[in-house]
Parts: sequence; C-alpha cells; structure tokens
Amino acid sequence: MQQNQSTRATDHITLVKSFAGNQDHGMLVKKSHFIDHMLLGLILESLGHPLLRVILWDGREICGAGKWGATTPPIRLLIRDRSALLRLIADPEINFGEMFVSGRIEVQGDLAEFLEMIYRALPRSRPPGLREKILTMLIGKQGNSRRSAARNIYHNYDIGNDFYKLWLDQQMVYTCAYFADPDASLEAAQEAKLDYVCRKLRLQSGESVVEAGCGWGALAIHMAKNYDVTVKAYNLSREQLAYARDRAKKEGLQNKIEFIEGDYREIEGKFDAFVSVGMLEHVGINDYRALGSVMAACLTQSGRGLIHTIGRDVPCGMNPWIERYIFPGACPPSLSQMMGIFEPQGFSILDIENLRLHYAKTIEHWWQRFEKSADQVSATFDPAFVRAWRLYLAGSLAAFRSGDMQLFQVVFSRTGCNCIPWSRHELYAAGITHGVM
Amino acid sequence: MQQNQSTRATDHITLVKSFAGNQDHGMLVKKSHFIDHMLLGLILESLGHPLLRVILWDGREICGAGKWGATTPPIRLLIRDRSALLRLIADPEINFGEMFVSGRIEVQGDLAEFLEMIYRALPRSRPPGLREKILTMLIGKQGNSRRSAARNIYHNYDIGNDFYKLWLDQQMVYTCAYFADPDASLEAAQEAKLDYVCRKLRLQSGESVVEAGCGWGALAIHMAKNYDVTVKAYNLSREQLAYARDRAKKEGLQNKIEFIEGDYREIEGKFDAFVSVGMLEHVGINDYRALGSVMAACLTQSGRGLIHTIGRDVPCGMNPWIERYIFPGACPPSLSQMMGIFEPQGFSILDIENLRLHYAKTIEHWWQRFEKSADQVSATFDPAFVRAWRLYLAGSLAAFRSGDMQLFQVVFSRTGCNCIPWSRHELYAAGITHGVM
Repeated sequence: MQQNQSTRATDHITLVKSFAGNQDHGMLVKKSHFIDHMLLGLILESLGHPLLRVILWDGREICGAGKWGATTPPIRLLIRDRSALLRLIADPEINFGEMFVSGRIEVQGDLAEFLEMIYRALPRSRPPGLREKILTMLIGKQGNSRRSAARNIYHNYDIGNDFYKLWLDQQMVYTCAYFADPDASLEAAQEAKLDYVCRKLRLQSGESVVEAGCGWGALAIHMAKNYDVTVKAYNLSREQLAYARDRAKKEGLQNKIEFIEGDYREIEGKFDAFVSVGMLEHVGINDYRALGSVMAACLTQSGRGLIHTIGRDVPCGMNPWIERYIFPGACPPSLSQMMGIFEPQGFSILDIENLRLHYAKTIEHWWQRFEKSADQVSATFDPAFVRAWRLYLAGSLAAFRSGDMQLFQVVFSRTGCNCIPWSRHELYAAGITHGVM
Repeated sequence: MQQNQSTRATDHITLVKSFAGNQDHGMLVKKSHFIDHMLLGLILESLGHPLLRVILWDGREICGAGKWGATTPPIRLLIRDRSALLRLIADPEINFGEMFVSGRIEVQGDLAEFLEMIYRALPRSRPPGLREKILTMLIGKQGNSRRSAARNIYHNYDIGNDFYKLWLDQQMVYTCAYFADPDASLEAAQEAKLDYVCRKLRLQSGESVVEAGCGWGALAIHMAKNYDVTVKAYNLSREQLAYARDRAKKEGLQNKIEFIEGDYREIEGKFDAFVSVGMLEHVGINDYRALGSVMAACLTQSGRGLIHTIGRDVPCGMNPWIERYIFPGACPPSLSQMMGIFEPQGFSILDIENLRLHYAKTIEHWWQRFEKSADQVSATFDPAFVRAWRLYLAGSLAAFRSGDMQLFQVVFSRTGCNCIPWSRHELYAAGITHGVM
C-alpha cells in the first residue's frame, strides 16, 4: 500500500488512501464522509493520538500518527460499517468488545499491544468528559441489550474441562502463576505458585485448611500431598468438583481432602488456615464484611490466611464488556476496599505482594496455547466464541501489562497473635523444597 | 506478706489483708471503703480479671485472680489515694498516665507486661460501655487540664541529643530496627534496617532521593555512602539537622546530601525515590491527600517510594495520654486510611510488610538502655520526666507485643510503571552487601 502521509505534528489525522472492494455484510459499501473522519479524529485525539491506522468500511485509511512523526503504525483497526463507528464513539467500553466479537471491528497486528496502548491512553476511572457526553447525547447509547447479553455469556466455569485443558497447565490452575524464574514453563510456575502460597501460610503437618473457591483442586491437592494437611475445599462448579475429586482419588488423597459444593458462606468448622485463590474477584464489595465474618468464625486463635486476588490501584468497576460477557458480577477491589474484609474483624495484615507482571506472564502462556489450539476450539465453538476468548485473553494481558489491573496476595492473622513469621527470609531461602520451612 | 486468698472462681475480688503505714502525700491515710472495693471490682471485671494485685492507699489488697485460680499474681498496682482511684475509673486512658507520672499510681513488677495485659484485655476501638458511661456520669471526667498539659509535653525532637544518645544506637535511629537475626545487636539491626529500606527502594548509583523526616540523618547518610545517591532530606528539628549536617561533613558527604529545615510540604524538585521513615505518624489523616500530591509531583515517571510507619489494624485514635504528653497530634493509620495517600494519586502498591515484632524487639533494647542510664537521666530531668519516659517506652513495647500497634513498610511505584522488581528474591539473597542488588 502506497504511503503518502502528511506528518505535521499538529495534523494528527491524515487521509492516506481510498480503496474500494470492502463488501462486508453483503451490502453495497457506503462511502465514509467528512463527519465520520472528524468523529474518528476526536476518538484518536482523546486517546492521545495512538500509534494506529484506522481503516474504514470504504477503505479510507486514517492515521493517528500526529505525535509519532513519520512512523508507520504497525497496528490496523478495521471498522466495517458506519454504525460500528458510531457505537464505538457512543460507548467504546462495551461496544468495542461487542463489535469485535461480531466481526464488525477487527484488529490487525498484536491485539494485546493494541489494547495496552488503549489502556495506557485512558485515564483511570475517568468521569465522562464533555465531548463524550455531547457525542453520547447526539448519537445515543446503542447496543446495550442486556437481555441478549444474558444469553451470550462466553465464559463460565462449567464450559467444559476439555476447553480449559487446551490452554491451561497440566494441573488446570486458572489463576496467576509465580515465575521465580521469568523463563520457567507455565507448569513449573503454577507449581511454584501453589508452593509459594503454602509457604506464605506456613502450613505445618497435621494442620487443617479451608479453601474458598478451589477450581479444579490443584492447590488442595498440593497442600494435602506436600504439607500433610487436611483440606476442606469449597466450589460452586460441579464439573470442576468432579474433576478435583477424581484427581484426589487417583493421588490417594480422598481421605485428606473433602471437596464440597458451596461457596464461602457455607464454610463450617474450625481451621488453622484459610486460603482463597482467585475467588474474591467474584465476591461483591458489599459482601466483604460477610466474608470477613466467615473467616473470623472459622479460624482458630492462631489461625492465619491468604487471599490471592486480582485488584486495582484505585476503586473502579470492571471493564463493562468483561463484566457482561465474561465474568458477570466480577469486581476486583482496590486495597482500601479490600481492607473492608479485614479491619472490622480484628485481622492483622502481615504481608501484601503485588504480582501484576507475573499475571501478565501467565496470560502470555495461556494466550500462546490458546492460539495454538485455535483450530480445536473452532471445531467445537462458533467464531464469535473464539473471538470473545481472544479478546478476553488479550485484554487481560494488556490490563496487567499496563497496570490497569493488579494481583495481590494478602497474608493475615488475628490481631495480636504472635505466632507469626519473624521475617520473610525463609520464603526465599535457597534450596526450598515442599514442606521444608 | 501473708497470703490468705479466697480462690473461688466466681469470687474475683478477694480482700486479702489490711495493713497500715501508707503515709504518702504527707496526709493521714483515709481508710478505703466498700464502695472503693466495688468500683475497683468493676474495673477488674471489665478487664477480664487480669492477673494482678491492687493495693489501695490504706494497704488493703484486692486480687483480680478470679479466673486465674490459686495463682499469685506477680504484678502489683499501687493506688495511693481515693481521688486517683476515681480518676482511673472515670477516664483510665488519660488518667492512668497522668497519675503514674505524678506517682499517685505505681506498678510493681514488669511494667510492659502489665500494660500488655491491659492492652489485650481492652477491646480495640471500643465505644464506652453502659457501665463506663454511668461511672463517668457519677464521678465526672476529671483532670483533663489541657492548659497544664500543654506545659508538660515530655517529648519532642529538640529535647537534647545527649538524652537520646543514652539509649538509642550509635547512629541515633529513632524508628523500628530490622532484626534479620533476633539476637542481633541494636546497632546491627538499625544498620540492617537502613539497608533493607535501600534494597526495597532498589537504589542505583547516581540516582536522587528525597527523604521526608530525616531524624538525625542516619538513612540519608547510609544511602549516600553505600548507594552513591544524592539526597535531599527534610526535617523540622534544628537540633537534629545540626547533628546530621555535622555527621555528613565528617563522613565527607556534604556534597551528596542537602539537609533542609522544612516538612514534606516544602519538597521541591524531581527525584527517583521518595522515602519517609517514621514521619507519617505525625501527619494528620486529613493531610494524606496533600502528602500524596507532593509525592506525585516530586517523583519521576519511573520513581518509586517507601513509607515506613507505625499503623493500626483498625482505624482508631492514639492512646490519649501518649497523644497529649508524648506526641501531640500523632495518629498511626490503618491500611485503609493509608491508602488515602496512594489511591487518589495513581500509585501502585507493590509490597507491604508488617514488622510489628521487630518494633517490640527494638523497644526492648531502648528500654534496657534507658533503665541502665536512669541515673544519668535523673541527674538532668525531674522524676516525673523519668516516669513519663518509662511509661511511654513500656507502653509502646506493650502496644507492639499485644498487636495494638503495627509497623508497616509500604513500597509503591506509579501505576503502570513496569520498572518494578520482578520478585523479592533479591531482597533476601544470601551474602547481600551494601549496594549489591
């Protein structure tokens, strides 16, 4: 394609070339107009002129390279019809995802890189600006069809173990791994994470542990097998529970682990440790006090706990597309919000670690495996499902890379309990093996 | 003294023996009455029957050993007059300290152990119970003489370097030390803390650091000397600053460190790192947003910071005696309160460590040294001053041992900055020496 860019720094939109031949949706291609280019210019301006080429339905190419000089942006955003452009302007956070999944918007180039660029350009938890308000008034919010959305959740934990087996590690751990060595395999890093959690909890032989939200059971099995503890593990997904029970039986651990269908509110008994990895994201902020009460009721006086969760630097809602189609009700908390679990109950925070870049690395592995398995996924699921998962994985990767999301591991005990680690040195001692404290 | 205790578990107050001879305050000793014993009984009950003997002004001994069975409590609390008892009942949190300092209440036995027992017995941030309200109504709040209090601040940072030299380490570090080895000397543990802070900040040769609240300059000097950074260090105490400047000059570091009289609001310039050790306690919660703004304005894009502060598990005020006589305006925050510094400014929390037991250990050292130097202190200061410091040190020790107070080190960067430590392993690598990362 011939490059004929004007590169004045003040001239952020450059009409490059018009070409025909776009026949998507079986319609005759309508020409894009000056007003379309102007609206797109406003979007690009509000995003700080990202290094991006936008190609409209009639082939018109618009380059947001004003501040980038003569560089040719490697990423191309294809917008296949005017309605898609208008919806993008009216409510980008929900409509980008919807139109990406339906194929009316396409990204050519590195999807995660594109999304990271957008995340970094957007102010955190920004209120809508005057321009956005005017555009929304002029164009109206479109496509927020909650009813149809409810029929189109692309994700749940009962989607089928076979699907997750295609791209998770062998132990089926669907949470952030711990790459002590950044070049470790995903398998090694998930195993390292399971053990890191056990060491942070200072598990001792013979102790009892309750796990809220146990997924496919990898942590429960790791704890029982390597730390000789008994575990009660709760989960709402029957398919995951069946898999976990089967695995525990194969490992000969069925007498050490009880897998229970239920959520944290069903926890009964007294335990030396409470652990929850990747569950808090699904607990509403309003239920934090109740969760804290459950923890306070089930822990012994010298009990301690660990919560591993996606979080935020500042309180703000989930991306609305993810919230609608991927994780309905999900809400990663900021630390001030998270303290609402601990402070009212007399818990003492001992240690908080942010593993954001480890989650980015984890998702890189998942995404690579997902793409390698794309043909197998396509054989079972429709193209919209595949695109939704691609967007979700790339978007999550971008969110952790850009700092839009964090990964917190929070270790706590009861206030005033002096049976707490003296320092962290033992966590990082050379030659650590399972169960050796 | 003859022991003649009734030890029925339900009978928590035991009149042991009456003896005469108490002639304190040069007055004829008034006999204690049933009502005094009853009021004292209510106090002991509200404290959960602590392992304690109380001896009244006429020698009458009352033993709060109900739930302790036949044990003879080793700690004796002497109350020298009825007015002292009444004031203790009316407003124990302020009046215990006032009467301890004036000698009208005395503790025989381990003062820190006594105070820890009281801290553990008192519910955290409790609202006054009905009984306390009635007692206060009956007796009235006494002795809250703010005007006289203002003339009797027993502590400030300009009290004289010689006083602090008696019981601090050689580098005059008046904050929590870090005992990688619990048996380390105070000198070694303070040096280890200074270096731990530098390693958490990942200081690199040639970088610039701003320090808010630099005390006698030990951290600024450690950073400049061992990490080859330039430091701007702020402090309000002229005597501390003069000492710090003198020491820097002796070390040949006067061109690397600028000591400035001023607080955090006066910080100007751009820095690679912001550090503050033991200053936040003196910043009001209402000023946290302003502090966060200063940090946001003075840090480079890849800048990072560390705040080391006394904190709380749950928001609550300072002990009122400490607040009035020792640290006016002091307020250790809970983590939810502390997030008010970071969340509005786009900071990302990377690491929080609670070093509560290290502060207890630090104060054990200070207190031992203080007691060893008691004669020297008494030669300069009046007995009330000595008692106030003894109470302050023992009370602080008790607060950290009992979990009433915490010590948080919080490491942060700007949101989305990926120049952050990959893991904590390097912090704990064997054979760490200054500046080796």
